[in-house]
Amino acid sequence: MKKALTIVKIGGNIVDDEKVLAQFLEQFAALQGYKILVHGGGKIATQLSSKLGIESRIVDGRRITGAEEIKIVTMVYAGLINKRITAMLNALGIQALGLSGVDANLIPATKRPVDKIDYGFVGDLLHDRINTSFLTSVIEKNISPVIAPITSDSKGVLLNVNADTIATSLSIALSHLFETKLALCFEKKGVLCDATDENSVIPELSSALYQQYKQQGIITKGMLPKTENAFFAAQHGVGVIIGHALDLNKKNFGTAITL
Amino acid sequence: MKKALTIVKIGGNIVDDEKVLAQFLEQFAALQGYKILVHGGGKIATQLSSKLGIESRIVDGRRITGAEEIKIVTMVYAGLINKRITAMLNALGIQALGLSGVDANLIPATKRPVDKIDYGFVGDLLHDRINTSFLTSVIEKNISPVIAPITSDSKGVLLNVNADTIATSLSIALSHLFETKLALCFEKKGVLCDATDENSVIPELSSALYQQYKQQGIITKGMLPKTENAFFAAQHGVGVIIGHALDLNKKNFGTAITL
Repeated sequence: MKKALTIVKIGGNIVDDEKVLAQFLEQFAALQGYKILVHGGGKIATQLSSKLGIESRIVDGRRITGAEEIKIVTMVYAGLINKRITAMLNALGIQALGLSGVDANLIPATKRPVDKIDYGFVGDLLHDRINTSFLTSVIEKNISPVIAPITSDSKGVLLNVNADTIATSLSIALSHLFETKLALCFEKKGVLCDATDENSVIPELSSALYQQYKQQGIITKGMLPKTENAFFAAQHGVGVIIGHALDLNKKNFGTAITL
Repeated sequence: MKKALTIVKIGGNIVDDEKVLAQFLEQFAALQGYKILVHGGGKIATQLSSKLGIESRIVDGRRITGAEEIKIVTMVYAGLINKRITAMLNALGIQALGLSGVDANLIPATKRPVDKIDYGFVGDLLHDRINTSFLTSVIEKNISPVIAPITSDSKGVLLNVNADTIATSLSIALSHLFETKLALCFEKKGVLCDATDENSVIPELSSALYQQYKQQGIITKGMLPKTENAFFAAQHGVGVIIGHALDLNKKNFGTAITL
């Protein structure tokens, strides 16, 4: 029988608030079984950029990563945030290992080709080349990987990657080896039926219901990439939940994705 | 028979110059047997601090690490420099794994107690608690650890640690398991007999000769911490060389430390 593995992804809103981050990490530490944490960036990179006079450019909701910006996000995501989280987890008695996609060629990528938009130093994952054997050897030592969304191409060029995409890809790659759950956490209690009502969480979202809600405009723009990732993982046999990071250990946590 | 392991330490002067760094990494990649790279910081952290209006404070040749500075060095050493080196080594066909002392509790430390000087967030290593079992498992997969001089205490507080000290401590801890060599690399060809003459390298430095040169003022202030580290490792059975990073694969490289 495959052993249980939970992959949790947290975003900038958790990372930015030291108190909330500490609360979340206690919950993460209390999770049973093998576990991996994938973290996003947050405001620290934007603040640092602006202090250094580098203006953030966002096109279609995606950050353009120039030559200076890739240095900033590598410093902030793979340096400060990654080591801070890892040190905090170690202090909670979890043995944690801070990683990026660069390390042990964990998550190889290619620089996104320039089409209409030049996203700069942004990577597209090579999904079938994830180093699951290294990750497995780490997990089986009861060490919890903490993964920053930075990777590189085969020439050693550093690239910024979407953290939801990393978490989704990892969950699919590892689902062959472990009974894998993916918790895509954010600042809401789940996928909402009414964006203005925090308590309108959809407990179970099937593919059919999702299509219906999308057509009706109930699930809209901001939620679409996350929901698409969730269904993509679910279709590959991963158990997926979308919910609030601080509800991680609650019963009936978030929105469960069904097929 | 124990297998061969080489631990190479490079300082800021190599890290700061992209061309020299690339040349060095090619040499490192060509080293036979298991290998670990420990890197220092360099000017990037100082430059970033100054751009952000944080003034560097150096007392007795040691950087004072305040609350803002520890964030900067964590970003620069464990983020930018560490991932850049790791990505470059991967591109050279070496499987490299970027680490800091935080990761997998690799190099636990305590915050240096305040005596006459408050060094701030600076760590003293807990030499007997180095996680050699994790390092060994990585090395034996032919993965080369690349280690940044950042660690944390048991409460999760991030700390800055001297990279020479890390390299020395690692070499001693791993000498029980591997036939360990330590190359302490810097911008000179070795320990010099005459500081103004690059070619006056002392080929072999015994403990007796070292004491004599120290008394005669031939080996002075700047070289003393490095030489002390070197003798400390040699006394524990490590083969130590002090020399230029770009001479790594040359015959008769640098100054060999003998007892």
